[in-house]
Amino acid sequence: MSLSLSDIQAAAERIRGFAVRTPLLEARAAGALTGARVFVKAEVLQRTGSFKFRGAMSRLSLLMADERTRGVVAFSSGNHAQAVAAAARELGTTAVIVMPADAPALKIANTRGFGAEVVLYDRLTQDRVAIGQRLAAERGLVLVPPYDDCHVMAGQGTIGLELAEDARALGVVFDMVLVPCSGGGLAAGIATALSALSPSTRVIAVEPANYDDMVRSLKAGERVANAPGPQSICDALMVDMPGALTFPILQALKAGAAAVSDDEALRAMAHAFYELKLVVEPGGAAGLAALLTGKIEVQGKTVAVVLSGGNVDAAMFGRALSAQPPIVCSR
Amino acid sequence: MSLSLSDIQAAAERIRGFAVRTPLLEARAAGALTGARVFVKAEVLQRTGSFKFRGAMSRLSLLMADERTRGVVAFSSGNHAQAVAAAARELGTTAVIVMPADAPALKIANTRGFGAEVVLYDRLTQDRVAIGQRLAAERGLVLVPPYDDCHVMAGQGTIGLELAEDARALGVVFDMVLVPCSGGGLAAGIATALSALSPSTRVIAVEPANYDDMVRSLKAGERVANAPGPQSICDALMVDMPGALTFPILQALKAGAAAVSDDEALRAMAHAFYELKLVVEPGGAAGLAALLTGKIEVQGKTVAVVLSGGNVDAAMFGRALSAQPPIVCSR
Repeated sequence: MSLSLSDIQAAAERIRGFAVRTPLLEARAAGALTGARVFVKAEVLQRTGSFKFRGAMSRLSLLMADERTRGVVAFSSGNHAQAVAAAARELGTTAVIVMPADAPALKIANTRGFGAEVVLYDRLTQDRVAIGQRLAAERGLVLVPPYDDCHVMAGQGTIGLELAEDARALGVVFDMVLVPCSGGGLAAGIATALSALSPSTRVIAVEPANYDDMVRSLKAGERVANAPGPQSICDALMVDMPGALTFPILQALKAGAAAVSDDEALRAMAHAFYELKLVVEPGGAAGLAALLTGKIEVQGKTVAVVLSGGNVDAAMFGRALSAQPPIVCSR
Repeated sequence: MSLSLSDIQAAAERIRGFAVRTPLLEARAAGALTGARVFVKAEVLQRTGSFKFRGAMSRLSLLMADERTRGVVAFSSGNHAQAVAAAARELGTTAVIVMPADAPALKIANTRGFGAEVVLYDRLTQDRVAIGQRLAAERGLVLVPPYDDCHVMAGQGTIGLELAEDARALGVVFDMVLVPCSGGGLAAGIATALSALSPSTRVIAVEPANYDDMVRSLKAGERVANAPGPQSICDALMVDMPGALTFPILQALKAGAAAVSDDEALRAMAHAFYELKLVVEPGGAAGLAALLTGKIEVQGKTVAVVLSGGNVDAAMFGRALSAQPPIVCSR
């Protein structure tokens, strides 16, 4: 396996004092609605508004002195972008970020706000990996992949360490952890940590409809791609196919997978607004949406849901709040 | 003094396991904007969406067996209402809540959702205290005041204990704590705890414009009332005058006070959306608004801001998100 518990523990040491040790909050309304005991890992409260800061700090803190002098490059729809930009600033290096021109304006503005140079590309006609690799070669930059990198995955896996610690403190064992899934780095990191620390806990990767490559890949037993073209409001979760490193981990650790629609994600965002007082972006709400819509049977179980990001603009948030009916609890 | 540190410590023991030990989060953008080191106490993540659950649990956990059989009554614009209703349900008793007919629909619905009987009154023509006292007398209910009660204040003061603990763990000393202020129970509780545990920390009570009775009372050296009639979007912070018990405490502990406009509260809510990923109601954002608008000089200081509640409906939240310009950080 390309990732071990000790890699994740080492990443936890590197990011300590930089990343937020985010709270695990009991989600009583979600529990009452589903007949489960539900906790949310509020990763929206992480620096830069998403879990991605963990992986970025984990990787960038390993840069050699001459690499820091030259800087880093990353391609990202927005959350990895902000995370790499903020981590680069924190460590005194520079970042160039390749972002789709149709990424949320908020994410582009924030990435620039953290001091990064932003290079925009057309998501439908250009290849972000090629652009990133060309910039790396031309300028001597270190490429920081969004998920297919051991040190990035190890950083995301620190969420698994914290879930295991918090479960112990609460005297509970999670039957499952619902994790929003794009390339699979977050799910693979958490699954690796929990396979060692809480082996009865199953990780479920949750994707947007039309971007359910992990669902289909786990079923097929090999990596399969999404058809090109469809749109999703879950901008953070739109990738072509599972990662080359992440997929074998999730396959070996018997992760599950599910997919949710745009409307389901919006309703989960409204639930988080009313019942949790947390701002969650569409992709960040995918796991909560799978729970609340009954896509995953949780009756009588203890479940953790990772709310992976909260970088949503006012227009999309307004759309979520006008989604009818919100999934709230009469108690 | 009507409240001591040991009263607050006893309240902390009573509410342990019921109330959320809410996180203190560093607010980096607010810090960059103000030149201070800023932390927010995310009391929006408390059960029922506001700090009021602490005071309600503190008081209701002291009910005698026969009082529990008969139940409790409270008057409240909404947050104390939900808190008393939820605490009553938790403890197996019943609650009657007297609420203004123009309270946010969300707060009325949530209070009913927690199983309470809601009695509506007209805020401009009827006296909620008289209605509450009549119900208490007629039905043998225990009246649970929103702030002028030692056990309620002691419950709110547990936030002060947690602030002192977290400051010690972080190796910081707060120069000031900004606290939204209605009757003054939250500010008085926190000031009492910190006067013992962190004597150099000054509590600043922040009120809405037109409801700045604490500002004027502290200046006058005696309790003075607000003129009747004006409106404020800070529904949680509209009282006639400071409490008979809370005011002497804040006066003796040399608390400061400031007031913010509706527009300033809305802009602070938008800041919390963009930069903190927290849902904050207008009154709950009063302290943050005072900080961000420079009402209080904080350059070079270490400041904690209590975000006291997040029970806001979609329409008011949409109004905050359309407020221009949002106070965000270019970093």
